[in-house]
Amino acid sequence: MRSEVLYESPTHSWIVMGRDPDKRDEVIDTNEFAIVTPEGTLLPDPGGIEIFPRVLSELTRYCSPEDVVALFASHQDPDIVSSLPMWLDLCPNVKTYVSWMWTGFIAHFAMGRAASIIEIPDEGMPINIGSRVRLNAVPAHYCHASGNFSLFDPASRILFSGDVGAALLPNSETSLFVEDFDKHVRYMRGFHQRWMPSTAALRSWSKRVRALNCSMICPQHGAIFRGEDVTRFLDWLDALEVGRLTWDEAAPSKAA
Amino acid sequence: MRSEVLYESPTHSWIVMGRDPDKRDEVIDTNEFAIVTPEGTLLPDPGGIEIFPRVLSELTRYCSPEDVVALFASHQDPDIVSSLPMWLDLCPNVKTYVSWMWTGFIAHFAMGRAASIIEIPDEGMPINIGSRVRLNAVPAHYCHASGNFSLFDPASRILFSGDVGAALLPNSETSLFVEDFDKHVRYMRGFHQRWMPSTAALRSWSKRVRALNCSMICPQHGAIFRGEDVTRFLDWLDALEVGRLTWDEAAPSKAA
Repeated sequence: MRSEVLYESPTHSWIVMGRDPDKRDEVIDTNEFAIVTPEGTLLPDPGGIEIFPRVLSELTRYCSPEDVVALFASHQDPDIVSSLPMWLDLCPNVKTYVSWMWTGFIAHFAMGRAASIIEIPDEGMPINIGSRVRLNAVPAHYCHASGNFSLFDPASRILFSGDVGAALLPNSETSLFVEDFDKHVRYMRGFHQRWMPSTAALRSWSKRVRALNCSMICPQHGAIFRGEDVTRFLDWLDALEVGRLTWDEAAPSKAA
Repeated sequence: MRSEVLYESPTHSWIVMGRDPDKRDEVIDTNEFAIVTPEGTLLPDPGGIEIFPRVLSELTRYCSPEDVVALFASHQDPDIVSSLPMWLDLCPNVKTYVSWMWTGFIAHFAMGRAASIIEIPDEGMPINIGSRVRLNAVPAHYCHASGNFSLFDPASRILFSGDVGAALLPNSETSLFVEDFDKHVRYMRGFHQRWMPSTAALRSWSKRVRALNCSMICPQHGAIFRGEDVTRFLDWLDALEVGRLTWDEAAPSKAA
């Protein structure tokens, strides 16, 4: 598994981990992130059971596993947060932030330790790591999950975007960053068209995210958008129609 | 955990299991089903890790756990199929049917045994249990998951509907069936309005399901619709607008 420091300041740093060459092909590739502070580490979308050992191992380069004080789940999918029982075993006091809609669902992962799951209301909420780092859960509902959040750091202006901006990359694409936007589009178009249910919801997200003036947009699959690619990505998204089925029945978004 | 036989014939029977009085309150309640044949058993949405022991125990009243030859996952959620690794341990030859969109995602549950996961294409497919029982995976995309299927049995005309028709019942509602439709609506309205992203997708599902002339509609949460309540439910659904957020931003379905 590779990792890089995305941002570093006296208060906190952002780490990305991904492109594990040992990952089995049938498991969808995921990017893992860590926000490391002297008062504890938050993991956005800590990942699936399958990759837990390698995420844990890579994380130890930046902090002690026992420093993990919080998990953030953009939504309820297995690749997002099925490692939850393992993190709860390792860090019994960890808090898990997730949409109010999914607390009862991810409790199915939690094996009797659901007390530390914190509901995020639909309008979002601030999420603190210690006393000096305050992140914001930004609404991303219906993109794709019904209850869904991005996570924004106002200090670094980095946005963790979950499945928005995700791309299904071939193994030959090894960079953690988008290097050639026009080429990258081919890896993300199909995902957005089919996984995202609502064009209107996507427009709503894009409008909210433009106002944040992000330095980077970090999806959970694919590659990170930085610099001018942030605006290129939002422009591309605003021209896309989603909710498209792959068979010959009229797609819901068209039939509305 | 309670269970009842919903249908019985020389070729197969349908069992429902649910309303576990020992379930912890923070775990969302689920109904589990089993289609038992002399040539093997299929479990639609076998459930979460949390309830696996009790489902297994109840199932032994109707068949041997080793008789389980197939799992069907309507979609990828933890309450639907996070018990997958346990079933794969118990029944190494079991086949798991799920939308092509989620095979790489539920592989995150599978712990290295993903070879037996079978992709359902968007248009659906027949699913056989042995030589005499043929079910059909019926498209239910964007209801709520982007890749989503109901499961229909043409012999009994029973439809397993996953999250469509789901209700969040108080513990005082102990019947496995809808007994008073007008009263039941209060338990399912909010779920459908918020969890379902697309009114058009729901209309498309309802039209497809009306044509099946179902004897029962069996959701994964809540209670079973039978007799005239089947049509009552479809009529109610056809008058409902979904994709509704709980805060004051315009809901995506309205803003489209």
